[in-house]
Amino acid sequence: MTTHTPIRLGMVGGGKGAMIGEVHRIAARLDNRFALVAGALSTTTERNAESAAGAGIFPERTYDDFAEMARAEAARTDGIEAVSICTPNHVHFQAAKAFLEAGIHVICDKPMTSTLENARELANIAEASEAVFVLTHNYSAYPQLRLAREMVARGDLGSIRLVQVEYAQDWLTEDTGNKQAAWRVDPAKAGAGGAIGDIGTHAYQLARFVSGMAPKQLAADLTSFVPGRKVDDNAQVMLRYASGAKGSLWCSQVAPGTENGLKLRIYGDKAGLEWVHETPETLWFTRLGEAAQKLRRGAQSMAGSRVPPGHPEGYLEGFANIYAEAADAIRAHQAGEACETLLPGIRDGIEGLEFIDACVRSARADSIWVAVHHD
Amino acid sequence: MTTHTPIRLGMVGGGKGAMIGEVHRIAARLDNRFALVAGALSTTTERNAESAAGAGIFPERTYDDFAEMARAEAARTDGIEAVSICTPNHVHFQAAKAFLEAGIHVICDKPMTSTLENARELANIAEASEAVFVLTHNYSAYPQLRLAREMVARGDLGSIRLVQVEYAQDWLTEDTGNKQAAWRVDPAKAGAGGAIGDIGTHAYQLARFVSGMAPKQLAADLTSFVPGRKVDDNAQVMLRYASGAKGSLWCSQVAPGTENGLKLRIYGDKAGLEWVHETPETLWFTRLGEAAQKLRRGAQSMAGSRVPPGHPEGYLEGFANIYAEAADAIRAHQAGEACETLLPGIRDGIEGLEFIDACVRSARADSIWVAVHHD
Amino acid sequence: MTTHTPIRLGMVGGGKGAMIGEVHRIAARLDNRFALVAGALSTTTERNAESAAGAGIFPERTYDDFAEMARAEAARTDGIEAVSICTPNHVHFQAAKAFLEAGIHVICDKPMTSTLENARELANIAEASEAVFVLTHNYSAYPQLRLAREMVARGDLGSIRLVQVEYAQDWLTEDTGNKQAAWRVDPAKAGAGGAIGDIGTHAYQLARFVSGMAPKQLAADLTSFVPGRKVDDNAQVMLRYASGAKGSLWCSQVAPGTENGLKLRIYGDKAGLEWVHETPETLWFTRLGEAAQKLRRGAQSMAGSRVPPGHPEGYLEGFANIYAEAADAIRAHQAGEACETLLPGIRDGIEGLEFIDACVRSARADSIWVAVHHD
Amino acid sequence: MTTHTPIRLGMVGGGKGAMIGEVHRIAARLDNRFALVAGALSTTTERNAESAAGAGIFPERTYDDFAEMARAEAARTDGIEAVSICTPNHVHFQAAKAFLEAGIHVICDKPMTSTLENARELANIAEASEAVFVLTHNYSAYPQLRLAREMVARGDLGSIRLVQVEYAQDWLTEDTGNKQAAWRVDPAKAGAGGAIGDIGTHAYQLARFVSGMAPKQLAADLTSFVPGRKVDDNAQVMLRYASGAKGSLWCSQVAPGTENGLKLRIYGDKAGLEWVHETPETLWFTRLGEAAQKLRRGAQSMAGSRVPPGHPEGYLEGFANIYAEAADAIRAHQAGEACETLLPGIRDGIEGLEFIDACVRSARADSIWVAVHHD
Repeated sequence: MTTHTPIRLGMVGGGKGAMIGEVHRIAARLDNRFALVAGALSTTTERNAESAAGAGIFPERTYDDFAEMARAEAARTDGIEAVSICTPNHVHFQAAKAFLEAGIHVICDKPMTSTLENARELANIAEASEAVFVLTHNYSAYPQLRLAREMVARGDLGSIRLVQVEYAQDWLTEDTGNKQAAWRVDPAKAGAGGAIGDIGTHAYQLARFVSGMAPKQLAADLTSFVPGRKVDDNAQVMLRYASGAKGSLWCSQVAPGTENGLKLRIYGDKAGLEWVHETPETLWFTRLGEAAQKLRRGAQSMAGSRVPPGHPEGYLEGFANIYAEAADAIRAHQAGEACETLLPGIRDGIEGLEFIDACVRSARADSIWVAVHHD
Repeated sequence: MTTHTPIRLGMVGGGKGAMIGEVHRIAARLDNRFALVAGALSTTTERNAESAAGAGIFPERTYDDFAEMARAEAARTDGIEAVSICTPNHVHFQAAKAFLEAGIHVICDKPMTSTLENARELANIAEASEAVFVLTHNYSAYPQLRLAREMVARGDLGSIRLVQVEYAQDWLTEDTGNKQAAWRVDPAKAGAGGAIGDIGTHAYQLARFVSGMAPKQLAADLTSFVPGRKVDDNAQVMLRYASGAKGSLWCSQVAPGTENGLKLRIYGDKAGLEWVHETPETLWFTRLGEAAQKLRRGAQSMAGSRVPPGHPEGYLEGFANIYAEAADAIRAHQAGEACETLLPGIRDGIEGLEFIDACVRSARADSIWVAVHHD
Repeated sequence: MTTHTPIRLGMVGGGKGAMIGEVHRIAARLDNRFALVAGALSTTTERNAESAAGAGIFPERTYDDFAEMARAEAARTDGIEAVSICTPNHVHFQAAKAFLEAGIHVICDKPMTSTLENARELANIAEASEAVFVLTHNYSAYPQLRLAREMVARGDLGSIRLVQVEYAQDWLTEDTGNKQAAWRVDPAKAGAGGAIGDIGTHAYQLARFVSGMAPKQLAADLTSFVPGRKVDDNAQVMLRYASGAKGSLWCSQVAPGTENGLKLRIYGDKAGLEWVHETPETLWFTRLGEAAQKLRRGAQSMAGSRVPPGHPEGYLEGFANIYAEAADAIRAHQAGEACETLLPGIRDGIEGLEFIDACVRSARADSIWVAVHHD
Repeated sequence: MTTHTPIRLGMVGGGKGAMIGEVHRIAARLDNRFALVAGALSTTTERNAESAAGAGIFPERTYDDFAEMARAEAARTDGIEAVSICTPNHVHFQAAKAFLEAGIHVICDKPMTSTLENARELANIAEASEAVFVLTHNYSAYPQLRLAREMVARGDLGSIRLVQVEYAQDWLTEDTGNKQAAWRVDPAKAGAGGAIGDIGTHAYQLARFVSGMAPKQLAADLTSFVPGRKVDDNAQVMLRYASGAKGSLWCSQVAPGTENGLKLRIYGDKAGLEWVHETPETLWFTRLGEAAQKLRRGAQSMAGSRVPPGHPEGYLEGFANIYAEAADAIRAHQAGEACETLLPGIRDGIEGLEFIDACVRSARADSIWVAVHHD
């Protein structure tokens, strides 16, 4: 077994018609570091078989449920080394628990769990297990956001004063009833957060990742615009940091004309930066009083890049960076070696649930400031 | 006297080194509707004489102060018909009062006054005077924002859900000590608001103008980032409308890399629109599920335009639209005719001060929601 | 008479319905350096009177034709000091001749004349007259193109290799029959060039102005796409410079979706720059191997600017820069002082006609390379 | 064997340090339609072994040269079904010949061969072989360029008048001596064309693909700016179509600040469209007199897409579309079924060499117009 031998991967969720499951599969495959060999992709037997065949998984390693899969695979000498969890939110906890306890590395979609309590429990389980746990906050793996993080960390912006992040979509402007939408607006499956859980946690994690700071307090106004919707589809959030920095986070799934509009701006007392998802390979950087610089992916470093500047890379390549680093981490773990990565993990997962929880608490109290970490 | 005869104009403030005074003069001149013939431009005699000469004002109509000017001009048969007030904020009230009471039309920079009380008193004075009062919220005179207003009003966006407005600058990132900065950060001259008064009121008025709605409540977090600064240089504001719509307003003068970054986005349940000051001739409009349309100045109507699409117009032309309409309003008033315009006026001025006042009240109470109109 | 006293200006052409005449008037007025006092704006008496009244010209100085105007104004003690010529091309020569010979400064629209022979004759007349002659190639007065010229001149780009310029419009895609279009597609009025004369000369002058180099040879393919059109509405031109540099010029008036799409790119062996008319305040500059820099109007110098960065300026302000500099040149001339400006003049006019002539010669010879300066 | 069984793929060229070989491998892998099982990746034994190991190819199927590989693989029952050819240009012909004659499907990088004679001979070989031959003109597989082609074909633009295409890079501005550069500037390896072969053929094929028209004549000016360079690094080309349409093609590898700047604009008498590689997911479309529309990948069709609009896809995904379609074509061929695709093939290859040949002939004759298809 060399570093070139693909890691044997299983998958839970991500059956036919799912969007994010296919993204995980492509990301796993892109750099040839994983081979998908087992799965419990769908919840009905027929659909499960069809989904598995489509994904190239043999029938003997197609499982009815994740618990059976964890047991059976752990027992095989050629069992999966890692598993991707791509189900609706409410399944994350039990699935992650099952595999972690079986000693199988976990790559889990966000938010980590559907409740903060589960998130904390999972943290304990992960610690006991020692298996690698990766949370696919893929945006933080875009090379230009990695660069942004470095620039903030080394003081290029001076002292940080402002963190403005937003994530706007329009696909839930109306009550569509499509499969992707159905579970996201069902509190039993999505958790307490609608837009804040689905995309707000991405925005929050990204701001956290790049700025290097977690807010101390937030004040939130949550709204459900679509009649009958039980979770928020829009959130206005103000942020305060311990350092005195301020910020705001806006996320919405009812903003017609936006697609997947994640945007981050950070301002210090010496310089500012801006990143917009529609042009993910560009990081705008401006020192006070100087011309704005257009920093392009691949121009200064090819880390996290596959092709030179001017050959557009995007979402799948960013997602694949998470998988590539997860492969590094897993192989290092197997070899008993240390491996430093920028991979999002348990800590990000807990912070995501703390963010959702704080938003809900603030909103219920007419937007008063609440502590984000309330313990 | 025909419509082609320029209106005799006086000016208060706007002496040498002032930025906005020259803007008013160019705007007044651009369409040949005004002739500047009198002024009290600077507060020291020598500087005043020099400023007046530079503006082409004869010495005999160069006045030491606005009170004398109002008296003397009102007494001349060829006295000024209108006056532009371009002083720091704290002078607006007394100057506007003097000219309105002299029956002279007033074109006043924003914010209308430095206190809400003054604003209300001025409203009474203006009503008694019957003279025309115009507040130079110039951004609302950009053709594409006029178009945006029309589109909202006729229902192109459906029912409005979200109003996101921001105005970011970087020129007060450090304590510069330049003349423009000095009075803006002095509460005695600027009023209770720093950034919220200087640029927040523009953003607020613009959102109001285009959306057709004034917020019912707001919650604000005001910050003074620069050590020793006595007024806010950054504001995060959440907005609630009586209709159930929500919004946010961010204004900052400490965001390095931004120039004069006014941006407005409005989303309804059928469509959304976006306007960005850096490209003022473009209004982005997207119906849910359709391609974004790039609506360009002059393409559908030449109202408010001087040159065809593709010949960039900008800030001065927008400002000149205010003056051109003010000329229409003044000539109509003199002729005893009705004249409907979209000119900002007393009502906008009061709302601006209510906005500042509400921001300060909310911020002092740890960002609780406060009524914007609290009487 | 101080520098603040406006220059007495006359105008030929630019009557009601004309586009460029109003542009000249606004540009002349913007900085308060000119007062329009005389004119022969239209060719029919009634229309002329109406046009003059609209422009604020008194009937006694409204003339039936330019020849009478030149005579009468030269005879007045308060006669015009300068004249703007805004007629269709074929009138430029005779009008400019009349005023230059009367010792009146001339500000003339482009192309300078409708034939190369006329251009050369006018050069002799101008030299004999000593009056100031300004050709309104307004694009070369945009601050960021002035900056570009400086950067090329001081070697920021290294040795220039490539000059790519284009100017695309769509308003002649169909046979519209509007007034603006009518004379431009009539060889008797426009001269031998259609698009090459109307907009190609602008592109050519701009490339010349910024690069500091005139092409030695060109090869052109001219097309009239609209059935029945007698002049070119599209031109593909290849350029060769004496230094070994190469270039291309594309101009078209039949490219749907373009507005007034002037664009210039220059590449040297050390750096490249790009300017696009739709965003005239931005000059893109990239040193080989470094990040692109967004150089913004007003950021490094306020020369040619009226308002700070972020307050959009555009076409009228650029045009006004020509007028402001013309005023400097005229006042200096009157004072017997030297005055160095970057104003386009006779030389640019001749080069424009040489460009048209070379394009036509090359195109008629199946696009062979021809010398641009063929004497 | 189902459609889900990956196609057994071999590769020639693309060893360590190659850029395009890794692109082919990722593209082949992205949709799980190919499994790379054999290769002759590098020309030295040691490097070849290392490259193969890195690509997951077993030693027993790592070959010293393509001829041996073709023989050996054709003899295996589990031999490769298809081969990717990613060598420098001069190897394409012999390699493609070897595999086609062995009945193995070929996916070949562009330009197809290094001479026009080879291209024609290869056409005969391909016809005799009946194997599938795919030329990786990847840009024509971007969804928005497929859409553009459809729009032109169904008449959305009206009658086509203008085709403006350009492809600018800066990586050969200086004599870098890197491996990628070395063979591209060596006529013995690259063929007669430098920039015209390397990127000009892409631009040419793309214009051809979208417009549906091949030029009848061209006139070219080729330049080698870098001292000592034996092939062109810049080309200005004018195009004429049989229909009367005109066009221009500019390609350059010495334009500092450009990255991989492919751009296509097509104008008809009813509408125009524009596509720019830096934002490959946007197709701009403007009907004469209407607002520009921003047509986004995935908005109207998910054909050729993997993720929804707003999740950026780029170069690798476009390249993978070629591979996915090649897989369709190969599987259909194996099943004896018809399969219509938009895959570039032999015809595109010949046209590419005809383009290079015509450019060289025209340039040598001082840019006279030459027929593109001269037989």
